[in-house]
Amino acid sequence: MTTIAVVTLSGGMDSCVTAAIARESHRLALLHARYGQRTEMREEKAFRDIADHYGVGRKMRLVIPAPHFSFIKGSSLTDAGRMIPLSMPGKGEVPSTYVPFRNAFILSAAVSWAEALGARRVFTGITEADCSGYPDCRSAFVDAFNRLVAAGTRRGSRIRVKAPLLRLTKSEIVRKGIALGAPFHLTWSCYLSKGPEACGRCASCRLRLKGFHEAGLPDPIPYSITPQEVTRGI
Amino acid sequence: MTTIAVVTLSGGMDSCVTAAIARESHRLALLHARYGQRTEMREEKAFRDIADHYGVGRKMRLVIPAPHFSFIKGSSLTDAGRMIPLSMPGKGEVPSTYVPFRNAFILSAAVSWAEALGARRVFTGITEADCSGYPDCRSAFVDAFNRLVAAGTRRGSRIRVKAPLLRLTKSEIVRKGIALGAPFHLTWSCYLSKGPEACGRCASCRLRLKGFHEAGLPDPIPYSITPQEVTRGI
Repeated sequence: MTTIAVVTLSGGMDSCVTAAIARESHRLALLHARYGQRTEMREEKAFRDIADHYGVGRKMRLVIPAPHFSFIKGSSLTDAGRMIPLSMPGKGEVPSTYVPFRNAFILSAAVSWAEALGARRVFTGITEADCSGYPDCRSAFVDAFNRLVAAGTRRGSRIRVKAPLLRLTKSEIVRKGIALGAPFHLTWSCYLSKGPEACGRCASCRLRLKGFHEAGLPDPIPYSITPQEVTRGI
Repeated sequence: MTTIAVVTLSGGMDSCVTAAIARESHRLALLHARYGQRTEMREEKAFRDIADHYGVGRKMRLVIPAPHFSFIKGSSLTDAGRMIPLSMPGKGEVPSTYVPFRNAFILSAAVSWAEALGARRVFTGITEADCSGYPDCRSAFVDAFNRLVAAGTRRGSRIRVKAPLLRLTKSEIVRKGIALGAPFHLTWSCYLSKGPEACGRCASCRLRLKGFHEAGLPDPIPYSITPQEVTRGI
């Protein structure tokens, strides 16, 4: 029998490619967090669409509510009173879109589920190469998290968190996804727009578009700016 | 100005004493998780009562929903189809009431809040001395969690998780709480009863009663068994 892997799936391109990688060798259990970001409903649609695409049934999908991220007002992603930056962050700078310790929260839920399922793998799309500057997207974070899992779960559960994109650039992630037939057309990365078109201007859109541009491939999702504006913005 | 500490407050005796300790040197921010345990509403009442007792306002209280713990069916505490054990677990055994990786999940939310508040301390009532046998209640877990916090939060946030009861026995916790005027009468530890009386028979009641008994002090909450039965059960 194929073993199960829990995959944290935001619905963005990185987590979609991560699911495509996990699926090569595991049965998927998909976890999504509803954490009060502006594009919450659009991201959840992407999660559902990708789960449908891979034929993942209801019992293997888990959407967790995380309304405290709005309550604590720690990020421009979740606090309607703050602006989403349209420029890329400077080197070593933590952008205002950083949601404090969010990945630890989501991965903890994923490990709980893995332990209950008897699954030994949790996959996350964390990447530090074409980096957002988030402290919880670094290899040191993943390593520390794995030591926590070893210390805090049942002896013998042997759960490991895998971050297969950790050292890949965005264009390498695009190529990897294409090679695996990842459904990029179903993904959503934009920080600002709730659809149907992505803004093409926020830091997340720009990082994504740069990845497709450098890979020499078209991004299949619609943007509200022209292809010329897209190229200029990269 | 007094600095803020985030305290994870289940509403049980350990977390209540932890709040009493934190309050000696900090302003309290209280976090509670609603994770689908049988006694959820009663525990949340204990949380509210203790928060009221300490005069903690609405903005410094945070209740997080965690319905996935029921969904994943990983524990007899959250799965109505399973029995709550009435005997104490054997040495080295993980009891069925263990909720997989729950403390990592709750502490992650607490650290998120601390980072947003600029607080440098998170307090938890984790104790390993009179131990429940839970893997996420050990000093190795707390140490690993602190390394994760250092790796996964903003440089300079300097958040530390403190577990002041880690090496105290239940009777030492009782004495500590009495010394600090902790409102034990407002706490709830029972795994089974939703109130107004605790069962006195589940593992959590027995550990609590043993603590008060050994400290030579009466437990101020009502039990549905007689004092004689209580003493026999210890």
